[in-house]
Amino acid sequence: MTRLQTPLIAINFKTYPQATGEKAVQLAKICEKVSREYDVSTVVAPQTADLYRVSSSVGIPVFSQHMDPGEAGRFTGHTLAEALVASGCKGTLLNHSEKRMQLADIEEAVRIAEKLKLSTIVCTNNPSVSVAAASIQPTAVAVEPPELIGSGISVSKAQPEIITGTVEKIRAVNREVIILCGAGISTGDDVVAAIRLGSQGVLLASAVAKSDKPEAALRSLIAPLRR
Amino acid sequence: MTRLQTPLIAINFKTYPQATGEKAVQLAKICEKVSREYDVSTVVAPQTADLYRVSSSVGIPVFSQHMDPGEAGRFTGHTLAEALVASGCKGTLLNHSEKRMQLADIEEAVRIAEKLKLSTIVCTNNPSVSVAAASIQPTAVAVEPPELIGSGISVSKAQPEIITGTVEKIRAVNREVIILCGAGISTGDDVVAAIRLGSQGVLLASAVAKSDKPEAALRSLIAPLRR
Amino acid sequence: MTRLQTPLIAINFKTYPQATGEKAVQLAKICEKVSREYDVSTVVAPQTADLYRVSSSVGIPVFSQHMDPGEAGRFTGHTLAEALVASGCKGTLLNHSEKRMQLADIEEAVRIAEKLKLSTIVCTNNPSVSVAAASIQPTAVAVEPPELIGSGISVSKAQPEIITGTVEKIRAVNREVIILCGAGISTGDDVVAAIRLGSQGVLLASAVAKSDKPEAALRSLIAPLRR
Amino acid sequence: MTRLQTPLIAINFKTYPQATGEKAVQLAKICEKVSREYDVSTVVAPQTADLYRVSSSVGIPVFSQHMDPGEAGRFTGHTLAEALVASGCKGTLLNHSEKRMQLADIEEAVRIAEKLKLSTIVCTNNPSVSVAAASIQPTAVAVEPPELIGSGISVSKAQPEIITGTVEKIRAVNREVIILCGAGISTGDDVVAAIRLGSQGVLLASAVAKSDKPEAALRSLIAPLRR
Repeated sequence: MTRLQTPLIAINFKTYPQATGEKAVQLAKICEKVSREYDVSTVVAPQTADLYRVSSSVGIPVFSQHMDPGEAGRFTGHTLAEALVASGCKGTLLNHSEKRMQLADIEEAVRIAEKLKLSTIVCTNNPSVSVAAASIQPTAVAVEPPELIGSGISVSKAQPEIITGTVEKIRAVNREVIILCGAGISTGDDVVAAIRLGSQGVLLASAVAKSDKPEAALRSLIAPLRR
Repeated sequence: MTRLQTPLIAINFKTYPQATGEKAVQLAKICEKVSREYDVSTVVAPQTADLYRVSSSVGIPVFSQHMDPGEAGRFTGHTLAEALVASGCKGTLLNHSEKRMQLADIEEAVRIAEKLKLSTIVCTNNPSVSVAAASIQPTAVAVEPPELIGSGISVSKAQPEIITGTVEKIRAVNREVIILCGAGISTGDDVVAAIRLGSQGVLLASAVAKSDKPEAALRSLIAPLRR
Repeated sequence: MTRLQTPLIAINFKTYPQATGEKAVQLAKICEKVSREYDVSTVVAPQTADLYRVSSSVGIPVFSQHMDPGEAGRFTGHTLAEALVASGCKGTLLNHSEKRMQLADIEEAVRIAEKLKLSTIVCTNNPSVSVAAASIQPTAVAVEPPELIGSGISVSKAQPEIITGTVEKIRAVNREVIILCGAGISTGDDVVAAIRLGSQGVLLASAVAKSDKPEAALRSLIAPLRR
Repeated sequence: MTRLQTPLIAINFKTYPQATGEKAVQLAKICEKVSREYDVSTVVAPQTADLYRVSSSVGIPVFSQHMDPGEAGRFTGHTLAEALVASGCKGTLLNHSEKRMQLADIEEAVRIAEKLKLSTIVCTNNPSVSVAAASIQPTAVAVEPPELIGSGISVSKAQPEIITGTVEKIRAVNREVIILCGAGISTGDDVVAAIRLGSQGVLLASAVAKSDKPEAALRSLIAPLRR
């Protein structure tokens, strides 16, 4: 399994027109360039239909935005682990606030991903759900208060207790899992604040993937983490 | 919009390991070859993650197995029309028995697909549901009794009244929509029977996509339709 | 099956605190009183947990807000037709905009309800979905543009073409089904407008069930329909 | 909040015809009688539509089979905490294998139930999911391997490691939560084995609720626990 390095910047391309098809490839190349320039670990999560063309074009880890649990062969219209591997993915988001999953399905998906050496980032909405997710032993947990997603108001400033509460509750039971946070992260200060509060990176979307100037946007987010 | 020709053979690759990643490309090439040889209209429906590499490799229409309704930008982990277009798709299955959709979502997806010039094949399970689907005016309706899917017992032999009932009910209100049938179709005889009962083609999966010899399998299915 | 009389006023109690438990019984009694006084057909739809105590207390038809399809015995936490009958219900709403159903499930639920002599009101969101619902042959279709639900802006004034379009499309294929409309209906004028546009009644919720003075509110809605 | 006593026998009535409507009342009375006779704590979980009539007829705790999260007023067809309280319920099952819930919804439902003094039994399918559920701090966790539900093959005999694994994993992080097990429990020996393996009770359904002789069936299950 690709060992994810921290601090980690995970960039969700969502279904933004600015990050679809050939534009997803261009955006991923920008992320790779800035990631290398500052030597900060970065993963990109384009749409399922773009996974192959993006992973064929960049060297940084490409993640899926979602993965369905289940054994190959029994489904139509599902996104299974085998298809992610065949598309060059290194991991997947699970349970994003726009794609919530059943508890038993999250656990099954994490187990299947492990077997196929895919990393998993389970999204959560508060400290209590975060510790439940961490107990399933994914690679990472990303806590994002849903009301701040896309708001431009960063969780690290508006609700720091979400981050500190998540870190404290998770660390009481799990020392391994990477803890990310997200929602409203749009400046380098937001990133620094998130790290200071005990998280090991951020999950973000619109600040980069919807930006008119994604390279400059990412640069300003990553610069404070330069090694 | 690509005008779908009839009779039509639509091949659902499901999530079969034999039809994932590079194997999906190889299978689609076989389908293209046989389709051209017999001059019979054929569409292939690989997994979302394989749409781009398959559509970059063949000239026959590539369909998605599913499409979510909704406007670009608001979702994570969804498969929207814009991503299908960017991946070279010409259409999509909707409401497959393994990916049932809400009625309002089917209608919204059909409207969005129309705008983007994507064809739609709405799957149904009986004549009453078929006429409801047809009233939404997709490109095609594909009736498949769920209990026969993957059974090897063909709908055209085991439940011919499902096909004749669907044709009769749909034609009373809609003369345009293409009517397909599926479930258990595995021989040329099954295909011929389906056409004689009034359908204009078939939707099949395991008979080709799980076959050890997919070329021979498809050949035997298509041969009776040679022009 | 109870033959529903038209014009029909259907009152959805939703999960309003003002219409839960013993308060649901009191509200249903008010609806019965006003319905009898003006001789206008009225049905009430309280929450599942309140069906028995409401239907034991009033003589007007009591409907469920939802019914799951499926055969008795195989489910936990579902609301099946047999339980509705045992609770004194005469019918059910299906596919409310706050409880959307899969197309195949709507059809199955309508068939099961028929067998058990329960009436069905299938909710829809536009003319195209309405004609699909009507083709399944429920007792009634209730078209409600979701964006107006709870808005206080009535569909009959803000989007009359939704009602006329639904009536025209449905009547082209189905002469029997009762056509209701809803969303934002809050005055007698709204009701009269809805009927003039070709509907045979209204589905409403907050105007009565959230009102401080539900009796006066219902009286003003029903008065123009007095026989 | 009603303090649940252990060992605890929880009886899920599912949607069995033998446990619907007036028959649910009769079955609950039998459960109450046997529970009192042997002084063993017993809760019954009838269908939502039967909650009021059952809780009006017996003194043992009545649980719902499911509860939706969410604030009163915004939903149609949902079963909210307020309705359960108004119907005399003392608690609810959550996440039954036939009604799986999203992780974030389970957590929200547990929090709402707490506020309204309703007990919660979260159903799970393996030790890993059980510890995730326990971390949310419900009243109880009930582990049930789905493949054994309704099988007549008891978890305590066929898969004892599911119970011991669940107990061990949960007790490492949570000393308070009650641990139940279920699936295939049909004899007193099964119950005794479940307790010996470290659980504090059982969740069962068909052995009592589908039985021709429910009183004798329950008696044989409970007798070994007599105080």
